[in-house]
Amino acid sequence: LLAGICSTDLEIVRGYAGFEGVLGHEFVGRVESVADEADEAWLGRRVVGTINIGCQTCAECLAKGPEHCPRRTVLGIHGRDGIFADYVAIPVRNLLQVPDNVPDEAAVFTEPLAAAVRIRQQMAVKPTASTAVVGPGRLGLLAGQVLAFGGTQVTMLGRSAASLRLPDRLGLRTGFTEEFADDSFDLVVEATGNSAGFIQSLRLVRPRGTLVLKSTFAGSSDLDLTKLFVAEINVIGSRCGPFAPALRLLQAGEVEVIAMIETGYPLDQALAALEHAARPGVRKVLMRP
Amino acid sequence: LLAGICSTDLEIVRGYAGFEGVLGHEFVGRVESVADEADEAWLGRRVVGTINIGCQTCAECLAKGPEHCPRRTVLGIHGRDGIFADYVAIPVRNLLQVPDNVPDEAAVFTEPLAAAVRIRQQMAVKPTASTAVVGPGRLGLLAGQVLAFGGTQVTMLGRSAASLRLPDRLGLRTGFTEEFADDSFDLVVEATGNSAGFIQSLRLVRPRGTLVLKSTFAGSSDLDLTKLFVAEINVIGSRCGPFAPALRLLQAGEVEVIAMIETGYPLDQALAALEHAARPGVRKVLMRP
Repeated sequence: LLAGICSTDLEIVRGYAGFEGVLGHEFVGRVESVADEADEAWLGRRVVGTINIGCQTCAECLAKGPEHCPRRTVLGIHGRDGIFADYVAIPVRNLLQVPDNVPDEAAVFTEPLAAAVRIRQQMAVKPTASTAVVGPGRLGLLAGQVLAFGGTQVTMLGRSAASLRLPDRLGLRTGFTEEFADDSFDLVVEATGNSAGFIQSLRLVRPRGTLVLKSTFAGSSDLDLTKLFVAEINVIGSRCGPFAPALRLLQAGEVEVIAMIETGYPLDQALAALEHAARPGVRKVLMRP
Repeated sequence: LLAGICSTDLEIVRGYAGFEGVLGHEFVGRVESVADEADEAWLGRRVVGTINIGCQTCAECLAKGPEHCPRRTVLGIHGRDGIFADYVAIPVRNLLQVPDNVPDEAAVFTEPLAAAVRIRQQMAVKPTASTAVVGPGRLGLLAGQVLAFGGTQVTMLGRSAASLRLPDRLGLRTGFTEEFADDSFDLVVEATGNSAGFIQSLRLVRPRGTLVLKSTFAGSSDLDLTKLFVAEINVIGSRCGPFAPALRLLQAGEVEVIAMIETGYPLDQALAALEHAARPGVRKVLMRP
């Protein structure tokens, strides 16, 4: 029904992860056919789907799920065609039904919203923790909203006034990254996807503070990790998250996602859609069949 | 009475931290004079001393101690002369008396042993966690022994057979770093102080595992941090540790340190001592007055 373009898609186009195949992993769709009669109740349902498909036999899969299965495939990212297509085949166990009151334009944000929710699954986000999200982009805006639940003050940090307009509208505190002093925040989420953003994030986190990596970036020779050791920083890598709480947030209308939509393209203009999504400061670009 | 040469001293000689002054921060000594009459009970006592001197007025100092005070000085490392000298002036509050049954040759290891103990102050070291220490050097050997308490299997990883001889003698499991597969360990302690060691440590830690940084190193262009994000690694910087448990371990004879001594030099041959300590594979070099 609808697909979203993620920064990971753009990275893959540039060569990240060596993936070749059909791109795309953020979607809402409708079940058109099932391989197994036992699953016929799913026919016609409006669904979203988790993106990791595990072997279902290893200790990781059995104990924790497919996200770190060494033999996993990942929809549109690793070893499995993604959803920038008219149809996609995906295991029924990866599907979740979308509540009726969540429109397609919101449901398509379930996957990135789950990735934001993942942070709260990994650590206690304290209501007293001064918190910053570096990078007020697509994922950063979801992370900022999710971190603010429970009374935590979250500051969205960007480099340009234009990049702070939407977080401002969403009621988040905003600021320019470089205007904040070293060691300003207890918790910093790096969501820029570039090494300059990582360097700023490391600069801004206080001694004994926590730095969450919500993205990856190419290595760089000016990367100085001394502060990790001297200031005893805790770095936490954070990737895919749980869909059920993300759907509950969308159902309750507790996260603003519609305002994050930039525009939509039909699937047969996918190249133009990807080019649009790659422009600096662009919000979520969607694709429809 | 006795001083130890640490890899940090050698890094400072090469320019790290921009320190100029008297080097040295690992020591055991005797209190020869006190500035305040109230402290006269300390006169003549054999002592070790913590190395961070805080402002005693900031929130860090008042809540947690001087280790991350933004205005701290650090003995022989930052803003304060160290102990490669006949005498050193140090606040009485930094001193701990050495138990009588701990010889000088063991007491001089209190500071690096405390740094190893710091790991257990920061996290639960589970008895079931497959654990590796990359770098079987001076600090690595202490970390390995400390991590093994409570039944945890610790593997000391090095690049040469010679580097594994001492950990073998100490009863630790040993192996060659490059012979272990990716994702082999739940907990990896990086104690090499070079970027190659960091890259190996990151390679060896399993998804959702923990990587402890016990040292720093110069940045490098081939540093790829993608795994931190994709495998959701938890990185924990780890610096100075608590002296009291380190002294208890030495008093109980539960950590072998004497076997780690390479040789000793008189203080007036300090340059030769530093050159000796800088040779690859060398154990602890001590200095005496």
